[in-house]
Amino acid sequence: MIVSMKKNATPRDIAEVCDRIRSFGYRIHAGAGDERSIVGAVGVGGDLSACIDALTAMPQVERALPISAPYKFVSREFRQTRTVVKIPSPAGTIEIGGDSPVVMAGPCSVEGEAQIMETARRVANSGARILRGGAFKPRTSPYEFQGLAEEGLAILANAREKTGLAIVTEVMTDSDVALVEQYTDLFQVGSRNMQNFALLKALGRSSRPVLLKRGLSSTIKEWLMAAEYVVAHGNPNVIFCERGIRTFETATRNTCDLAAVAVLNELTHLPVIVDPSHATGKRSLVPAVARAAIAIGADGLIVEAHPHPDKAWSDGAQSLNLDEFDAMMRMLEPYNELWCEARLEPAYA
Amino acid sequence: MIVSMKKNATPRDIAEVCDRIRSFGYRIHAGAGDERSIVGAVGVGGDLSACIDALTAMPQVERALPISAPYKFVSREFRQTRTVVKIPSPAGTIEIGGDSPVVMAGPCSVEGEAQIMETARRVANSGARILRGGAFKPRTSPYEFQGLAEEGLAILANAREKTGLAIVTEVMTDSDVALVEQYTDLFQVGSRNMQNFALLKALGRSSRPVLLKRGLSSTIKEWLMAAEYVVAHGNPNVIFCERGIRTFETATRNTCDLAAVAVLNELTHLPVIVDPSHATGKRSLVPAVARAAIAIGADGLIVEAHPHPDKAWSDGAQSLNLDEFDAMMRMLEPYNELWCEARLEPAYA
Amino acid sequence: MIVSMKKNATPRDIAEVCDRIRSFGYRIHAGAGDERSIVGAVGVGGDLSACIDALTAMPQVERALPISAPYKFVSREFRQTRTVVKIPSPAGTIEIGGDSPVVMAGPCSVEGEAQIMETARRVANSGARILRGGAFKPRTSPYEFQGLAEEGLAILANAREKTGLAIVTEVMTDSDVALVEQYTDLFQVGSRNMQNFALLKALGRSSRPVLLKRGLSSTIKEWLMAAEYVVAHGNPNVIFCERGIRTFETATRNTCDLAAVAVLNELTHLPVIVDPSHATGKRSLVPAVARAAIAIGADGLIVEAHPHPDKAWSDGAQSLNLDEFDAMMRMLEPYNELWCEARLEPAYA
Amino acid sequence: MIVSMKKNATPRDIAEVCDRIRSFGYRIHAGAGDERSIVGAVGVGGDLSACIDALTAMPQVERALPISAPYKFVSREFRQTRTVVKIPSPAGTIEIGGDSPVVMAGPCSVEGEAQIMETARRVANSGARILRGGAFKPRTSPYEFQGLAEEGLAILANAREKTGLAIVTEVMTDSDVALVEQYTDLFQVGSRNMQNFALLKALGRSSRPVLLKRGLSSTIKEWLMAAEYVVAHGNPNVIFCERGIRTFETATRNTCDLAAVAVLNELTHLPVIVDPSHATGKRSLVPAVARAAIAIGADGLIVEAHPHPDKAWSDGAQSLNLDEFDAMMRMLEPYNELWCEARLEPAYA
Repeated sequence: MIVSMKKNATPRDIAEVCDRIRSFGYRIHAGAGDERSIVGAVGVGGDLSACIDALTAMPQVERALPISAPYKFVSREFRQTRTVVKIPSPAGTIEIGGDSPVVMAGPCSVEGEAQIMETARRVANSGARILRGGAFKPRTSPYEFQGLAEEGLAILANAREKTGLAIVTEVMTDSDVALVEQYTDLFQVGSRNMQNFALLKALGRSSRPVLLKRGLSSTIKEWLMAAEYVVAHGNPNVIFCERGIRTFETATRNTCDLAAVAVLNELTHLPVIVDPSHATGKRSLVPAVARAAIAIGADGLIVEAHPHPDKAWSDGAQSLNLDEFDAMMRMLEPYNELWCEARLEPAYA
Repeated sequence: MIVSMKKNATPRDIAEVCDRIRSFGYRIHAGAGDERSIVGAVGVGGDLSACIDALTAMPQVERALPISAPYKFVSREFRQTRTVVKIPSPAGTIEIGGDSPVVMAGPCSVEGEAQIMETARRVANSGARILRGGAFKPRTSPYEFQGLAEEGLAILANAREKTGLAIVTEVMTDSDVALVEQYTDLFQVGSRNMQNFALLKALGRSSRPVLLKRGLSSTIKEWLMAAEYVVAHGNPNVIFCERGIRTFETATRNTCDLAAVAVLNELTHLPVIVDPSHATGKRSLVPAVARAAIAIGADGLIVEAHPHPDKAWSDGAQSLNLDEFDAMMRMLEPYNELWCEARLEPAYA
Repeated sequence: MIVSMKKNATPRDIAEVCDRIRSFGYRIHAGAGDERSIVGAVGVGGDLSACIDALTAMPQVERALPISAPYKFVSREFRQTRTVVKIPSPAGTIEIGGDSPVVMAGPCSVEGEAQIMETARRVANSGARILRGGAFKPRTSPYEFQGLAEEGLAILANAREKTGLAIVTEVMTDSDVALVEQYTDLFQVGSRNMQNFALLKALGRSSRPVLLKRGLSSTIKEWLMAAEYVVAHGNPNVIFCERGIRTFETATRNTCDLAAVAVLNELTHLPVIVDPSHATGKRSLVPAVARAAIAIGADGLIVEAHPHPDKAWSDGAQSLNLDEFDAMMRMLEPYNELWCEARLEPAYA
Repeated sequence: MIVSMKKNATPRDIAEVCDRIRSFGYRIHAGAGDERSIVGAVGVGGDLSACIDALTAMPQVERALPISAPYKFVSREFRQTRTVVKIPSPAGTIEIGGDSPVVMAGPCSVEGEAQIMETARRVANSGARILRGGAFKPRTSPYEFQGLAEEGLAILANAREKTGLAIVTEVMTDSDVALVEQYTDLFQVGSRNMQNFALLKALGRSSRPVLLKRGLSSTIKEWLMAAEYVVAHGNPNVIFCERGIRTFETATRNTCDLAAVAVLNELTHLPVIVDPSHATGKRSLVPAVARAAIAIGADGLIVEAHPHPDKAWSDGAQSLNLDEFDAMMRMLEPYNELWCEARLEPAYA
């Protein structure tokens, strides 16, 4: 159950609502309260519809909603209209989940100033709006390159200033959130950290939006619950990112569950994008999967692009070079147009 | 290694080639020989390039090809141009893998004359070219409806005559091949039978094309090898059908591996279609997945449609009703056009 | 619902029971009827407990049982005591599911007289009771050895006569059941054919017991339903065989789901054995998994053993040589004893 | 390549060795150096055997080892004898990987003083040596109980003093390592954090041993690499814990990959235990899986036990009550004895 308070509700009004909810046997969920004038009630309590009626009758209450899904704030029951996540950039606000798909592009790892600047300029020219690049890298082996850390963040920030692109970069642990927040416009939570709950809670207390990659073997329901952690702790701006799941198939690095985009569009109001690079692990397959992602209704893409994929310090096999990236962007144009027409039709969503 | 003979090659010419191949330590693969004037050599033999040179020098030999993939006839190495599988129908030949995507539609099970005739007329009007319907049904439980058998086949054949649609229907065992062949235009091999090798061999000896669904947990390589069974036993007309694989995810009935379409388009010259109904198990997701399938480059779709899905004897939850099917076909039109433009460009394939 | 008739029930008595069942809205399941004086009712009918009462009151009825599981005859609800499957051999009847674990051993493929005779003599000496060996081989590639067919069956039958071992061998299609039945004591259904329903039905009409391997990605419920096909069609003697399932892990050929043995022991009265060879795909892991299988309560093992694994025509990497097999059998002895003590305790089962 | 220095090696000696290694084109791995007088070299360098020879010839070098596995310190190549991880307790040092299997037991969550004390006393009496209990709980939903945090740790520490049991408890993020270290004898890394590299690095700098649970969909190789993170950063005491992997099967909560124990025993010198509670998710299956785990060669078990599983705040369905736990421990005794005999045989390992 979610109760939203009227705009002028006082802390005392909220406390009264909480008391009333408790009198029906429910617990108050702490995280969401103050910031948003929204009270969440969870647990197994008494007569739900009587409780809803009693709350609705209180003058300070705007709306009281029973929500049956285990995820509350991220569910379609909570909000019927689609959420647009707004990302600031020197070139103006970028809208994910808005009127057109948005492409994020860049290398797997930040390797240096020249690599990033060349990539940023070229992908911006090709139509990307957000620059990706890892400064903290989760690597299977302790002996592989672990990222340039703050030096890498500064390189990204510099490219931001010079190109007008916004920045998305990975944060791997709650103790790094404050540092990364100084540089990035959009936090990326990697697959291995989708259920790093300390990190999710810390990001819930940030004001920057979060790109939440799906865990390697996470169900869609678990993924929604992970987003709920962020939102319930105060940050409503979460974007899902399908990047392939782990299966028995080895012809591709992962199995891209594109239908998950359509499933999410039924279950949540939050945007969802697709990462065709990690989903396939193979450069030649990226454009085809990108095309299918836009066709199925994704709100955007995140794509690995590198000036010299064969010299990349990580993930070269799945990176497009900058010409290939440009060709893909042009190929996607008519699919983007069909996407926009569908989104503008009143029946959609 | 595959050796193709010149058109006027005699059995004696072929025998000489076989002897030469054996002299290098390779075995002759029996299945393919006579019918197609093609000799296949397998096994671990001696100097491969010397053998190829020796064979190429023989006057009756047109071409001798070393093929490194474990699948030979179905590989791109064997044939660079895409194969068009031709399916006869009262309304003319249907081409799968040709200039436009082809849609197959109909109910999961043949339930009776009226159901099939209504479905056939409506899906034909909406643009489907092939009618699907099961007369032999593989059901998890022995207590579920097992299909109308020959009675069902006769109903399909009648609908074929009246509507001009071609027929695709499942055959479950080699001992039924002769019976089903009397009625169908296209054999369907179901997921559970993808590695029913006795069935694949029997279909290799048939002259009707084969729609080969991917096994629930089959790798793409195993799938290609299953097709190789059919082709190596004499039937070159195989169409792949991606219908979702089994994973840990339960939000959808299966996980639709759409990237497999792009992988197959790199590895084989044979056509590939997608079944969005089994891939998702949920009616509301079918149009979105169908759209993505065309966008990624599938040569067609096979879709469950039923006059009254809520009364269907099987798979009602994933069947579109006939109005929904029609709406989906109209929605797909601009995607089909983009598909055709791409296919007509010289660089494609 | 399952109704068992008294011993002297006539066809007319059975017909009356069937009519009564139908009057409550249920359907009669055809397969099981006459042979066993058991009537199965399925489908969605009227008041189940009233129907049970009415049937129990009929003089010809011994027992009427509501069974909630989708599998009926194979469920613990149908039979509380464990079924012992009896297999004839020249050396006397072998009991699977009886007082001690039974080991089946032999090569993957029958390669010739000498290979089989050497293997049979040695594994018999080491304590195996049943000789395994494939005469019809399901191979991923059409170019791999497909088995010696009837010649291989004859070789097995000869070894049976000379050593007293019973024989287990694979049958791949319903059209081969009559042939294989002439030679084998126990049919093996391979993983790829676990849901080959035409084959399961044909085996249901045989009088020889069936070893039913689990499908590569079959759930335990689907496996039980596959056994139900055999039993519902008239053959009550089914043995389950866990041989590993397909997962993302590649360190072993398959992932051995040993807990499935414990799950089956809760859900069914039928015996279950384990195949540590296919489960691991690696010789060095076979003894450890065999030990765990006995410890968890399996009724036996089926193990690949070959005089010269490095020269085996198939599956050499997972075959023990005959000395290794003997060592494993000695290592298992104390575990077999613990198994037997547990089985003899009244509380067990 | 791993180089171990003689005991009296000085920092200057180590620096010389590092220079020599670099002169062959390899990089020095920072983490492992000083503490252990071991130098790790990674990357792609020049002539490996020449480099090994040159290093071996240096007077300060004890041993220079080429290691081909991507994991170095945890591999059998690095150490042939099995590592015994020593855990201090008020009742004396506990050895994991020593002469007998060790059982850890306790509730999923620390709920309060009484629950923990009752559990601790009873499981100690039954033969457990280590008390488990979560004070920081990774829960799928933000609305579920998240653990008592430091209050819970203090309760565990109190039980430790009163019963002599050692403590194992989960740490979820690097920023909690210092806090948890004050209370626990053994850190637990949960499945969702197996690749939380910031956490693994922090634990590498701790002097307490680490119980590393396998990730839900982690390969054995990835698991070994995760352990390598801990060891390469300075902490040699890692214990693996198989707790089931995620597959398509739903009859059990996870699929217990018991063969992984045998695989690890081939690949690493570190101990491995099994968690039959999470592996199955079902109380009735726990004893059977525990038995199989000991039989296959696990160095111990971690088992959920609770005074009143039906009232547990989490994981009640898979928790044994304290009588059931005691019965299981007695049932395991003969299997433990067989385990010990095998371990004492010279051929083992």
